[in-house]
Amino acid sequence: MKLSDLPEDDGYRLWLRYEPLSEPLFSSRRALARELVFPGEAPTLVAARDELVRGLGGLLGGPVPLGETVHRAGTVLAGTPDSSPDVRSLGLEADLRELGSEGFVVRSARLRNEAVTVIAARTDIGVLYGAFHFLRLLQTGASLDALDLRSAPRIRRRLLDHWDNLDRTVERGYAGFSLWDWQKLPGYVSPRMRDYARANASIGINGTVLTNVNANAVVLTREWLEKVAALADTFRPYGVRVYLTARFNAPVELGALSTADPDDARVRAWWAEKAREIYRLIPDFGGFLVKASSEGQPGPQSFGRSHADGANLLADAVGPHGGIVMWRAFVYASEVPTDRAKQAYDEFVPLDGTFRENVLVQVKNGPIDFQPREPFHPLFGAMPKTPVMTEFQLTQEYLGFATHLVYLGTLFEECLDSDTYARGPGSLVASVTDGSLHGHALSGIAAVANIGTDRNWCGHPFAQANWYAFGRLAWDHRLRADAIAREWLAQTFSRDPSFVEQALSLMLESREACVDYMTPLGLHHLMAWDHHHGPGPWIDQGRPDWTSVYFHRADERGLGFDRTGSGSNALEQYRPEVAARCARLGNCPEELLLWFHHVPWDHRMRSGRTLWDELCHRYHSGVLWVARARSVWDELAPFVDSMRFEEVRSLLRIQESEAVWWRDACLSYFQTYSRKPFPEGIPAPARALEEYRAIDEKYVPGI
Amino acid sequence: MKLSDLPEDDGYRLWLRYEPLSEPLFSSRRALARELVFPGEAPTLVAARDELVRGLGGLLGGPVPLGETVHRAGTVLAGTPDSSPDVRSLGLEADLRELGSEGFVVRSARLRNEAVTVIAARTDIGVLYGAFHFLRLLQTGASLDALDLRSAPRIRRRLLDHWDNLDRTVERGYAGFSLWDWQKLPGYVSPRMRDYARANASIGINGTVLTNVNANAVVLTREWLEKVAALADTFRPYGVRVYLTARFNAPVELGALSTADPDDARVRAWWAEKAREIYRLIPDFGGFLVKASSEGQPGPQSFGRSHADGANLLADAVGPHGGIVMWRAFVYASEVPTDRAKQAYDEFVPLDGTFRENVLVQVKNGPIDFQPREPFHPLFGAMPKTPVMTEFQLTQEYLGFATHLVYLGTLFEECLDSDTYARGPGSLVASVTDGSLHGHALSGIAAVANIGTDRNWCGHPFAQANWYAFGRLAWDHRLRADAIAREWLAQTFSRDPSFVEQALSLMLESREACVDYMTPLGLHHLMAWDHHHGPGPWIDQGRPDWTSVYFHRADERGLGFDRTGSGSNALEQYRPEVAARCARLGNCPEELLLWFHHVPWDHRMRSGRTLWDELCHRYHSGVLWVARARSVWDELAPFVDSMRFEEVRSLLRIQESEAVWWRDACLSYFQTYSRKPFPEGIPAPARALEEYRAIDEKYVPGI
Repeated sequence: MKLSDLPEDDGYRLWLRYEPLSEPLFSSRRALARELVFPGEAPTLVAARDELVRGLGGLLGGPVPLGETVHRAGTVLAGTPDSSPDVRSLGLEADLRELGSEGFVVRSARLRNEAVTVIAARTDIGVLYGAFHFLRLLQTGASLDALDLRSAPRIRRRLLDHWDNLDRTVERGYAGFSLWDWQKLPGYVSPRMRDYARANASIGINGTVLTNVNANAVVLTREWLEKVAALADTFRPYGVRVYLTARFNAPVELGALSTADPDDARVRAWWAEKAREIYRLIPDFGGFLVKASSEGQPGPQSFGRSHADGANLLADAVGPHGGIVMWRAFVYASEVPTDRAKQAYDEFVPLDGTFRENVLVQVKNGPIDFQPREPFHPLFGAMPKTPVMTEFQLTQEYLGFATHLVYLGTLFEECLDSDTYARGPGSLVASVTDGSLHGHALSGIAAVANIGTDRNWCGHPFAQANWYAFGRLAWDHRLRADAIAREWLAQTFSRDPSFVEQALSLMLESREACVDYMTPLGLHHLMAWDHHHGPGPWIDQGRPDWTSVYFHRADERGLGFDRTGSGSNALEQYRPEVAARCARLGNCPEELLLWFHHVPWDHRMRSGRTLWDELCHRYHSGVLWVARARSVWDELAPFVDSMRFEEVRSLLRIQESEAVWWRDACLSYFQTYSRKPFPEGIPAPARALEEYRAIDEKYVPGI
Repeated sequence: MKLSDLPEDDGYRLWLRYEPLSEPLFSSRRALARELVFPGEAPTLVAARDELVRGLGGLLGGPVPLGETVHRAGTVLAGTPDSSPDVRSLGLEADLRELGSEGFVVRSARLRNEAVTVIAARTDIGVLYGAFHFLRLLQTGASLDALDLRSAPRIRRRLLDHWDNLDRTVERGYAGFSLWDWQKLPGYVSPRMRDYARANASIGINGTVLTNVNANAVVLTREWLEKVAALADTFRPYGVRVYLTARFNAPVELGALSTADPDDARVRAWWAEKAREIYRLIPDFGGFLVKASSEGQPGPQSFGRSHADGANLLADAVGPHGGIVMWRAFVYASEVPTDRAKQAYDEFVPLDGTFRENVLVQVKNGPIDFQPREPFHPLFGAMPKTPVMTEFQLTQEYLGFATHLVYLGTLFEECLDSDTYARGPGSLVASVTDGSLHGHALSGIAAVANIGTDRNWCGHPFAQANWYAFGRLAWDHRLRADAIAREWLAQTFSRDPSFVEQALSLMLESREACVDYMTPLGLHHLMAWDHHHGPGPWIDQGRPDWTSVYFHRADERGLGFDRTGSGSNALEQYRPEVAARCARLGNCPEELLLWFHHVPWDHRMRSGRTLWDELCHRYHSGVLWVARARSVWDELAPFVDSMRFEEVRSLLRIQESEAVWWRDACLSYFQTYSRKPFPEGIPAPARALEEYRAIDEKYVPGI
């Protein structure tokens, strides 16, 4: 294996590396960026200029001079019509107005007869987004000739949700601990906070929920709000607004009141005053994210009120200040339902039309919980009068933590491209999310962050791609997962086509491989108890809808959860066009087969194999993929610095051993029901089922 | 304020920055290091060569060529007589033998008529230590002419104790979380682990206890020992051996036995087998550190056995493999003693002579618990038949966490220089520690680490100096705290004398200032409950010897703990020469006055002030020092890169506000006993005592 002699890279710079371009790119790009003209002292403009200075300086191998006005060819001109007379002179106002408050143009133009490249927007933040886009073009080696780019986000609120606790542990966090160093705040704000905001701005993320949805009221105390304000001040120039999770019982827990009943006037007054206090400290505070009346969290149902009553209480508090409330539909109450997949729909559809205008209902991509594969959530399209926002999970709670290479761009795309048929064919989840399907001005998308104190932010070098892909899709969901992966690879590792093509294949195949070695054919929720690391198909103790057997329903006849009319009938929550596709066993897409059907072990699959044989082959092919990925990666050694190369190499080795563990544990377990031998070519598990069951991992992170 | 334009430095490189020398140093040093001759492929020699290549390349602004044999003037020659024929030809064997297994020489010599600088040792690790020493000479700007240095450590075991839990929290850790990424171990070992070992080796630390003294038996399971072994493999080339804390109840908790009684043959066999298992995985495993029968930890006393019985049990297990046991004397049992300061002495002195030869008794610098100032521990010199090792605390549990600039070199020096009079005058704690006083071959010194996942390792840029100073003093306790601070500053920040002199004053004064604003005049244990952050002189609930009132004994007559014959008589645990110095109120050093005496409020101090007025002045002068430190630091801006400059600047601001908090809370509280007004010049507290008492900080790190 030939190692590279590239300088070591610890991954901290993410996709913003700005390593010098090589020829012939270097000379041609240098000619287009001989000087930068970018007046203005507003903080966001300064941030954009600093980024261009840093980026151009790095990519072009030396400082790019700053000019006052355009006076020579090859100038990069940036600004708004207000901040830059040169930009104003180009007469872009009408174009810019159409692009709204965050959009930008990047355009080749002539000014005083000189060829210039213009980065312009109506707003400062638009200019910043344009600057990052221009640098992305440079880094990916895109042509800069005759540029005429216009870009504006399709979704208004593009957020990261941090499940960060105030003690700096991170629920389901696998990249170290919380970035927020509460003890030193507000007195000291680490420079990393600015880099966090830069990274988000570079991909268009414009908000961050700092705290765990399993919320703690303490963050709403004055002392902690001052810490939050220090972060908000740091993020502000980058257009990243701060949000918090609201603990529904806060009026009681903070000692003010004896009830948190949304119908109580004192409760309403308490939240209104709390909102005023927050906005005095953080004038652009984004609003609240709330998980209520679910998994033990307090909520309006404790007082006999509905989710809408709860959401509206908070919406009325922040509304006067321009804030919003994101109310999570991930609810399940103390009674165990016949099918957990149905509960959110049952609870929320009747409430459609009763939420305030500044409320979004936040819905996970699928009806269970961020499994390797789920069908889209039936609430998408089912609440036409309510803005419904999509929630993805970047942190790989169910996809191998930070040790498995799993590119989620394809998962996001699969969900966003799903057709709900809510207003006929083409009613995609994406158009529910961007508000266009039902004409909502307010729209949002969020992802549970995979970011922590690890030097490379995400624990796995490739996990950075999931943060990146989410941001890019949140900005424009018409981008394709493969194109995004390509641009991420080019910026993060190498533009060399031999590298990009091979690494791209790994990324694009990786999620399906993970589905195969964990939960193929529509299986779901097979993970170990509590910490969710590794397989636990045998889990049958505790709350039934937290067990594995509740979801896989293996018995001697077969495998899978019958959600058709003969079972829980969760299918009826989908439009008939969708339901019809899945209702018949013979018709149902095989990747969701066991999600919707209890299937006999001898059922003949499209491959010609029986279900049991197919299950074995799927598990095994997932393992084989990781083995193949390891050799592909080894071949890529010449393109990657040794630090990241060795890290990915080690992690792929861990991934392979854990894929084997998943395969062997799950097949050993399901075999006790199928009572069939392993088909030829499938290796027998190395250990007895009892040994897999006895594995009792300690101190698994993220809980 | 003029900021520097030095490149940003995040502190990760610690004192191993190797920034290019400036003239005239550059040319003169370059002439002495034109080529490096350093054969050998043993891992430690490779580590030493890599370090010289890195260090010389950085300091001299470009790669230094590697030669096979000395053939020109200005060659740096490194190795052992075995690894290098050129070294062998110099006839150093006799000298090197005297320097033992870790010592080295750095010497100007002539070989084949060419001037060379030789780094030589009898062992590979000696060469590595010599290489680091040579680089230190270069970095600090020391002369390299006519070098004739010989160096060998005075203490054999020089250890960091990490109070790291297996969930990666760190007890009393203020620099983020545990460096050990257990989940990814052994499959992936972060490059940071090597840098950790490098940093330790650079200052001569040769062992690390990975786990908290409040121990967890899980680390002794096979799965976890494999993780430990991966760390040991990484540290080994740097001479850093791995140790673990042993949970005394492990045989029971890991499910093997029903008792952990050291007298039980099955227990002895269990530990012997466990030791064999460990040494199979880690052939150079250092041994166990044990906290037993103290603060709720299980121990031999649960079975009616003595500390010696417990220590010998483990010593017999690791002894055959060359391992040692460090048995902590920090014990206090369930009954509350009349004076906690006396307990360790009372328990351990009778056991002197009953420990196995491979047991060290580990004693904290003072008899209470790492307070800003304590007298030396009375056990030093009181167990002549037992090797007694010293334990310091680098992590600033009681000295302002990682937000206060407090240089501990002076504290270490004060303790090591203390005269126990055990064998007459000059029986220093240092000579107890290095074994020379009572002729022990085995000797040790340990410090509770202040290292975590924070990018700069220690949370505060200046906290790195405490790690550094400990290592340097552990190697040679005759070094002086000021000289160590000087060399640390020169390597870590700047060699400019204007910088070094001013920053040095800050460092040297800082600990006394902290004593002043926290616990002046011998006060101790006044901190807030449980998390130990901020003042809590009013703490009077819970176990009495965990309260503040137990220790300060304030009443209307006066203040302080009477440890003379009229009180607990803890003084009698010291030799008469020491006791006599402190026994009389008028004679006692004022910095320990309230440690040993209950002093009337009107007692006339040496300053001419009453005790009350002096107390007020001391608290206030501590605050004034921090204010002055802030302006001094601001003046140093031109010498420091902006990242570290701003960080220290912010932290000094926090330090000042916390110093004010300590002063105002403590004086408000003590005033309720003294019933005297604040003397002129002492500002009245900003808040009422009740408000200070009501401060209830949440999520303070380190617990």
